[in-house]
Amino acid sequence: MDYQQIIEEVYQEVQEENLRGKVATYIPELASVNPDQFGIALVDLEGNVFGVGDYQVPFSIQSISKVHTLTMVFHVFKSKLWARVNVEPSGNPFNSIAQLEYEKGIPRNPFINAGALVITDALCSKFEKPTAQISDFINELAGKTCVRINPEVKQSEQNHAERNTALGYFLKAYQNFENDVEEVLDVYFSHCAMEMSCVDLAKSFSFLANDGYSIFANREIVSESHARRINALMLTCGFYDEAGEFAFRVGLPGKSGVGGGVAAVMPHKFSIAVWSPELNEKGNSVKAIKALELLTDKLSFSLF
Amino acid sequence: MDYQQIIEEVYQEVQEENLRGKVATYIPELASVNPDQFGIALVDLEGNVFGVGDYQVPFSIQSISKVHTLTMVFHVFKSKLWARVNVEPSGNPFNSIAQLEYEKGIPRNPFINAGALVITDALCSKFEKPTAQISDFINELAGKTCVRINPEVKQSEQNHAERNTALGYFLKAYQNFENDVEEVLDVYFSHCAMEMSCVDLAKSFSFLANDGYSIFANREIVSESHARRINALMLTCGFYDEAGEFAFRVGLPGKSGVGGGVAAVMPHKFSIAVWSPELNEKGNSVKAIKALELLTDKLSFSLF
Amino acid sequence: MDYQQIIEEVYQEVQEENLRGKVATYIPELASVNPDQFGIALVDLEGNVFGVGDYQVPFSIQSISKVHTLTMVFHVFKSKLWARVNVEPSGNPFNSIAQLEYEKGIPRNPFINAGALVITDALCSKFEKPTAQISDFINELAGKTCVRINPEVKQSEQNHAERNTALGYFLKAYQNFENDVEEVLDVYFSHCAMEMSCVDLAKSFSFLANDGYSIFANREIVSESHARRINALMLTCGFYDEAGEFAFRVGLPGKSGVGGGVAAVMPHKFSIAVWSPELNEKGNSVKAIKALELLTDKLSFSLF
Amino acid sequence: MDYQQIIEEVYQEVQEENLRGKVATYIPELASVNPDQFGIALVDLEGNVFGVGDYQVPFSIQSISKVHTLTMVFHVFKSKLWARVNVEPSGNPFNSIAQLEYEKGIPRNPFINAGALVITDALCSKFEKPTAQISDFINELAGKTCVRINPEVKQSEQNHAERNTALGYFLKAYQNFENDVEEVLDVYFSHCAMEMSCVDLAKSFSFLANDGYSIFANREIVSESHARRINALMLTCGFYDEAGEFAFRVGLPGKSGVGGGVAAVMPHKFSIAVWSPELNEKGNSVKAIKALELLTDKLSFSLF
Repeated sequence: MDYQQIIEEVYQEVQEENLRGKVATYIPELASVNPDQFGIALVDLEGNVFGVGDYQVPFSIQSISKVHTLTMVFHVFKSKLWARVNVEPSGNPFNSIAQLEYEKGIPRNPFINAGALVITDALCSKFEKPTAQISDFINELAGKTCVRINPEVKQSEQNHAERNTALGYFLKAYQNFENDVEEVLDVYFSHCAMEMSCVDLAKSFSFLANDGYSIFANREIVSESHARRINALMLTCGFYDEAGEFAFRVGLPGKSGVGGGVAAVMPHKFSIAVWSPELNEKGNSVKAIKALELLTDKLSFSLF
Repeated sequence: MDYQQIIEEVYQEVQEENLRGKVATYIPELASVNPDQFGIALVDLEGNVFGVGDYQVPFSIQSISKVHTLTMVFHVFKSKLWARVNVEPSGNPFNSIAQLEYEKGIPRNPFINAGALVITDALCSKFEKPTAQISDFINELAGKTCVRINPEVKQSEQNHAERNTALGYFLKAYQNFENDVEEVLDVYFSHCAMEMSCVDLAKSFSFLANDGYSIFANREIVSESHARRINALMLTCGFYDEAGEFAFRVGLPGKSGVGGGVAAVMPHKFSIAVWSPELNEKGNSVKAIKALELLTDKLSFSLF
Repeated sequence: MDYQQIIEEVYQEVQEENLRGKVATYIPELASVNPDQFGIALVDLEGNVFGVGDYQVPFSIQSISKVHTLTMVFHVFKSKLWARVNVEPSGNPFNSIAQLEYEKGIPRNPFINAGALVITDALCSKFEKPTAQISDFINELAGKTCVRINPEVKQSEQNHAERNTALGYFLKAYQNFENDVEEVLDVYFSHCAMEMSCVDLAKSFSFLANDGYSIFANREIVSESHARRINALMLTCGFYDEAGEFAFRVGLPGKSGVGGGVAAVMPHKFSIAVWSPELNEKGNSVKAIKALELLTDKLSFSLF
Repeated sequence: MDYQQIIEEVYQEVQEENLRGKVATYIPELASVNPDQFGIALVDLEGNVFGVGDYQVPFSIQSISKVHTLTMVFHVFKSKLWARVNVEPSGNPFNSIAQLEYEKGIPRNPFINAGALVITDALCSKFEKPTAQISDFINELAGKTCVRINPEVKQSEQNHAERNTALGYFLKAYQNFENDVEEVLDVYFSHCAMEMSCVDLAKSFSFLANDGYSIFANREIVSESHARRINALMLTCGFYDEAGEFAFRVGLPGKSGVGGGVAAVMPHKFSIAVWSPELNEKGNSVKAIKALELLTDKLSFSLF
């Protein structure tokens, strides 16, 4: 399989379609990004890198980091975590508080905001220096120091923190939050403000395509069984209320972020990261989703 | 891979766990079934059959037939269908009418009751003798005449039709229903009242493991791309509001019915049907789900 | 108190404000009505009539008839009825089915569609010729034969019956519906299609201003205690999801209909009917509501 | 009308019924109150006081103070306030956050928690020393210094503040909150922790029975038109999701608190306060509601 040729074709065809969306505007740092950037990086199980476009340009990975933080506590807590957060897809927007009330403080899954806050809270209980240790962990997964926390992005997120603060206190009201709300939010905004390139991001997801073993970290990150479960979660819950559509059209486990990035894996084949800032109305990158759809069409395989 | 040995081990281990649930009681025919029955049939891509327990006993496939009816119109209508029914998982019970109102008459997916009614309605618009043609289609997929519509089950369903009738009229109010409500319900209850054994059911799902080609029917049933999409839908929506849990624990595309059956596929490997009447509180067979979880553990592979 | 002068002033001031809304368009008979019609009729406890504008022109009273049907079964069933329908205001549109699901088939109050269907169902269980007996009852309350069922309006309602049919079957699914759905809907659409003038409508509400005694029928229609309860229900639930606003701005118990009519009472003082076809977005007549607001301002009294 | 005799009869009959409920237990100060206490105080428009039972014992007025704070800003802000809070009854529990999300940060009415927080926020914007000024205002209304803020109650409320904190931040996310969340909550918990007796509470509500004029303060507190509107709000929204039931059974504008108090008015006749700590499942005092129901039955009049 000539991955380089395929991703170049995909890149070309997506560019020709001239798809437009809207960059995220809730913070100035995302609003001012050059919307025309577009990159694809694919990493196979031997560690070969295939790239096209802006695949080496660092961007704000935002919610994609929720896969990394979940992995950190998944490994440590195992099944105990699932009393605090469910594994069902949510039909609601990512920052909905209504569903949390109906389900009595147990978030639907670890990727909606409420669930990710529970994960970060669990992480804060377990790790002494959580922010630094998240960076270290992602750097290890990528095989090099590549993560940078953008201080302006973090500050801006904190300036618009009301809704996430409300979610934190609401979780606390249901006794599903152990630490101080502000402390956890500081860690949460730190990992959402992380920046890295498509190629490093794809490398950091490689262990999920490889039964839990990272060739870049040179160790088993999670067991084969846990890797499968994280992939299952990404497939059913990784794209907000568009998860079904992504499974239907693309058929790969993946996670998106409002910075316009998507990281995905084809188990036993490759990991991939695609980035382009313009989003559709569900908050997912229009070019990235189109690229991944074309990719699985061209490959004539997906998960299914 | 010695499938016969593996499913026998699975069968044995499940029996030893002595899991209990409750048979469906909303109609007498399901309430009076022997709850101890349990069978597994696995069919590989060459057509080899592996079976254990009551795998040759016909049972009421109920909602599993929704995969067959979807396939019949998927093939015919292609993308037009997706203006009438969505592909997103539903966090609500299978027969909820509230969600249908919030989403203005477009059912969340083709497997909740409202969505399946739209599919059956589309089928009634397309086929002259829909009930007979559904039977013929499933018989063709299974490679032999094996489907029987149980008249008592059908009659009982019709005696408890109020909620589905309400859904039908509600869809009509949103102009998402073309035919007479009673006529479509007759077809709907007919296909829900179909009976067949695990082995025939597994055969009828074989094309979904085989890129759309049925070795029993000796023809392409749907394109490779459509087969992948049907599998994606089963994975995200096939188990009511337990779809995420099933993906997480088992990781195979599948569809359950309140008769206690589950049909699933491992793409490019096999199709499988498991049946045991006792259900958990979400309406899925406790033994069938446990059996499939053990199976993917033993195989050390799933979709992911 | 010179009621004639006051309602003339009110009439004049409303006309000068030139308020506009939209006539109901879901059936052609309502869509084609002359939107400029506007009438007010006030009836005091001695039976004196004060009128202005089109107060003698018959119009489609629609949901206002739900007060009459409630009165018919309130009298007969007393407290038993309140196991089948609640007395709480609904924050949802009048024809919502979602709330009915959340509250397990018990409608929030007798004036939303689902609740009114339960009332009509109870009425069909009690009376031999329900449609004729509703007409007779209203005629008696008004002191003369004045009710006419418009056959075109009734037929049009039946041609758009899907949503109400769905509500009927949904109530049946919750075993909160005793009779045949189509039969009850026939009676329901008959009473919604009744036509009468402001003056006759105001007379038919007079007993609610008079502790349950109708001076036109010359008898106690309901006890003083029941009259108070019907008034309480109108105040909290009589204007769909605008009930709070009406209580806040006007402060009289009343009931509106999509034909543009509003009937209201000031206990121990008078009953009043106002009609003008153009509706606000909540489905209540813009001129009628404004007129009643001005009226209680001028009178310097309301319920409160 | 011999009010003293009537309230003594009511008191006696309620005591004989031996109604039981449960005292509020979310804070220890309310949980440990003597549950058998029961008092009634009625104040007529001349200022005559009629009392029975524990009508001179101070108790925690809790949410009843929301009528006082609403009055303070109603007077000042007039219609501007109604862009920030609605006047419709809520079918949901008093501390629901889901409805707030559906209605985009505009609380349904000023008496549910979210609405009361908006009122307190508006009050903090307007007054320099809001807590002291609320006390002063209520003291003025009661004609004497009688309000005491219980520091233990306030502290306990603050120890269980998570849900209200979440509501505050959620309102801020919708830009419907001007001041610091913690500051506003401090004022909010202060006024909820106020204690006064039935007789003083009834006096403080007297202006609402008297077209806005307080004979104890010797001045017009609000205009006649505003007094009517506050009464309308109490009738439609004063008893959480039991407002319809209270209007139906009692028919007086009133407001309840989880301390077991209810304050109500019969316009142009009297104000009344009833207190007994045991609550029904909706959070309203069982004895107080029964007492008021018997009262309007005996008086043969209510609002309606």
